[in-house]
Amino acid sequence: MTDKNKQLVSTISDDNKLTLSLKDIDMPQPGPDEIVVRMEAMPLNPSDFGVMFSAADMSTATQSGTDDSPVITADVPEKVMPALKTRVNKDTPVGNEGAGTVVAAGSSEAAQALMGKMVAVIGGGTYRQYHCVNVRSCIEMKDGTTATEAASSFVNPLTSLAMVETMRAEGHKAIVHAAAASSLGQMLNRICMADGIDLINIVRKESQEKLLRDMGAKYVVNSSSETFTKDLTAAIIETGATISFDPIGGGKLSSDILNCMEAAITHDVEEYSVYGSDAFKQAYIYGALDRGPITLNRNFGFAWGVNGFLLFNALGKLGSETVKAMRKRVAEEITTTFASSYTHEVTLEEALQLKSIAAYGKQATGEKYLIKPQG
Amino acid sequence: MTDKNKQLVSTISDDNKLTLSLKDIDMPQPGPDEIVVRMEAMPLNPSDFGVMFSAADMSTATQSGTDDSPVITADVPEKVMPALKTRVNKDTPVGNEGAGTVVAAGSSEAAQALMGKMVAVIGGGTYRQYHCVNVRSCIEMKDGTTATEAASSFVNPLTSLAMVETMRAEGHKAIVHAAAASSLGQMLNRICMADGIDLINIVRKESQEKLLRDMGAKYVVNSSSETFTKDLTAAIIETGATISFDPIGGGKLSSDILNCMEAAITHDVEEYSVYGSDAFKQAYIYGALDRGPITLNRNFGFAWGVNGFLLFNALGKLGSETVKAMRKRVAEEITTTFASSYTHEVTLEEALQLKSIAAYGKQATGEKYLIKPQG
Repeated sequence: MTDKNKQLVSTISDDNKLTLSLKDIDMPQPGPDEIVVRMEAMPLNPSDFGVMFSAADMSTATQSGTDDSPVITADVPEKVMPALKTRVNKDTPVGNEGAGTVVAAGSSEAAQALMGKMVAVIGGGTYRQYHCVNVRSCIEMKDGTTATEAASSFVNPLTSLAMVETMRAEGHKAIVHAAAASSLGQMLNRICMADGIDLINIVRKESQEKLLRDMGAKYVVNSSSETFTKDLTAAIIETGATISFDPIGGGKLSSDILNCMEAAITHDVEEYSVYGSDAFKQAYIYGALDRGPITLNRNFGFAWGVNGFLLFNALGKLGSETVKAMRKRVAEEITTTFASSYTHEVTLEEALQLKSIAAYGKQATGEKYLIKPQG
Repeated sequence: MTDKNKQLVSTISDDNKLTLSLKDIDMPQPGPDEIVVRMEAMPLNPSDFGVMFSAADMSTATQSGTDDSPVITADVPEKVMPALKTRVNKDTPVGNEGAGTVVAAGSSEAAQALMGKMVAVIGGGTYRQYHCVNVRSCIEMKDGTTATEAASSFVNPLTSLAMVETMRAEGHKAIVHAAAASSLGQMLNRICMADGIDLINIVRKESQEKLLRDMGAKYVVNSSSETFTKDLTAAIIETGATISFDPIGGGKLSSDILNCMEAAITHDVEEYSVYGSDAFKQAYIYGALDRGPITLNRNFGFAWGVNGFLLFNALGKLGSETVKAMRKRVAEEITTTFASSYTHEVTLEEALQLKSIAAYGKQATGEKYLIKPQG
């Protein structure tokens, strides 16, 4: 264990500039229930970009600094600055998850038991070389699991599992998923196939449709098709899906989904009801790929909900026994059901190159970056 | 008890016409658990207009028939006809509630006990002279209660009480109410004052602001004011309201409310969170005064829900013990907390006059019609 440790931070200054840079930080000392992890692999997830880029206009980004100490600067629009006031002039650590080897452990039995193990960790800015976390914020991986395999053990695996468990807990029997060709969408598809749950995948390109069908997906509908709402309604009639998950948010996709659910539920109903069907229809929005307004064209009666969906809140609702079982399943199936793949590996320094940012910032299907911070 | 009975029905024909008329119907015979009520007073509530006018363009309404048998006809836009297919060429009875005297009762003890009593009833098309209902669909009023006093015992009293009980059940501590100068809004105001609950009333006119303040309302904000969101945020900071009820739906009012809640919750928070506050913010939409799209401008993080709110569904969630207590409270406080007032009384025939429809169809604050069907 060296004395050197560095961390990727995002800083917004009061002159409306975003700066991304690497900062030298102290080597951490673990408390009784803490471990120090030598971080070896961390994914660049869409959920990291909210902290990393914030509301900066990345088309204005410029590069400075050196190869060893790169600096990215971009303009933050004046009008969004009030909403960011609690961030101004503070270094905010970036990175929600990652994996590595435990190189120091606190005095508690739980911490000591992890010494030398491969663990996946969540939270607190994982884009650094050595990270100190509470034992509760990590999953012990099976022997032989590599850091690259373990890097994405929390965000996508637990979010997609939480969707399935939420479906069960709330009494639905099939799921509609939007932007379904994403890494998370592919994982959800594998979980649903393994568990025998009907999943309707909404994509917007034929190539994504093919990708999912080749994986074995039974229901794939294309939102760019002229027959989209007809196709979606038909799939909902067949599956009985009354819950949806949408990472886009802005626009009218969740509204379309609710209207198709209502059309499916009432398609063979003889009796008129001015209040719509009694069947409860739930649309969860778990991201903000489109930050524009969410538009609800309400032809779906009164038995409906549109809710934000955030992993931590969802886990809180599911309860600790369910969450414990979910974590165990992730560790056991990390190279199968919950496997992630990456198209590029970069160092912390390479992650702060304009051309890398241009690539991973696009959030294109099939492009996924992994940071390997030990060089 | 005479042999004559008539009923107000709404009919949509396959040539895109809405017809409102009075139909002679049979005098009902009660089953074991049923009672026949001589209907004496029924309110014209906004919630009745969905069935009555449906999606017809009432600006095209014309009058025909006779004084004793008036007929109103209006055009239904072609494009909405598919959504109304289950209504076409059927007489749909109108009227959600009303009150009167029990003139016949079935054989069961519960039914017999109501013989000769004043009862309030719900459901099934109350705009008729004699109505047969299950004993579970009525509230026995206290001796001396008049039909006019009892007419509005269900829709507004139970809806406003259900809002308060939902607030309690879901762990909120204060309420935001939109279109707050309505009959229902005034009732909610009285309940909240009686129960010591902070209520923030949103109105859009100064006269409505005055009306509520004169009733003793502490928090009234005007959505037409330039300082609306600032005023609303300040009231939420003071009260801690995290649940709202909005009968409008279309537009961005519920979105504004959620954003003001988030601003209030985070106004003194030092730490930045990209996901917004953890405090759950709930916006219920209980009407469709504006049928246009609901627009959500999402600056309120991920801990939020926007849901339809319908009395029957809400009662189902609250459970039978709570509902029983709610009904008892309504009967006890029908001339105080739950009192309604009416500006006009009309017969069934007079309700089907164009000038009456023009007046009550406006749903203006302070204009409220009561049908007295026994002439």
